[in-house]
Amino acid sequence: MVIRIVNVYRETSGPAGNEDFLTLLESGGVKIQRIVSHASSTPENEWYDQAYTEWVLVVRGHAVLEFDGGERVELNEGDYLAIPPHARHRVDETGPETIWLVVHITAEA
Amino acid sequence: MVIRIVNVYRETSGPAGNEDFLTLLESGGVKIQRIVSHASSTPENEWYDQAYTEWVLVVRGHAVLEFDGGERVELNEGDYLAIPPHARHRVDETGPETIWLVVHITAEA
Repeated sequence: MVIRIVNVYRETSGPAGNEDFLTLLESGGVKIQRIVSHASSTPENEWYDQAYTEWVLVVRGHAVLEFDGGERVELNEGDYLAIPPHARHRVDETGPETIWLVVHITAEA
Repeated sequence: MVIRIVNVYRETSGPAGNEDFLTLLESGGVKIQRIVSHASSTPENEWYDQAYTEWVLVVRGHAVLEFDGGERVELNEGDYLAIPPHARHRVDETGPETIWLVVHITAEA
């Protein structure tokens, strides 16, 4: 058996305003991603709208999510959140190097 | 919509040799758990044997996993690993307060 260890903190640097997406695992209707946000935000009035539950954890840094309807949610290191299907949201702001762990439960969709 | 934020670092203390399991999300054939290990280990010659892929991340602390066959894998903060179905393994040792994030992809089983 080949055991492959990887670290979630590797190669996290990047230009401001940028986001890096890295798929860590894709299996059985689940996708686990690392996203590194460099002081980035979703353009105003642009929303993520997913058909499935998305679970997010801020591993490092901080971020503010905005939900359609006006609710703003501040997430700091270690905070996690399940975003229900079709809860329209955008990233309003992030720290200079914010690392997310995101579990997309696409089996539901 | 009710947004509920929780922190993965909350209430992590416990007695040595102990493990605390907390389910953070269960949805669509996926279970996300936080496990806090307090210098704990699986009894010798006892193995976890799951029918599905288990994805683990050491959020804080460190641990050594042993696989049936003798392979030992040291995991430090930020290290993650996908444990294939039926890869028999045990926790050989952990730090005094090691926090795991575990994604059980039971939809596969």
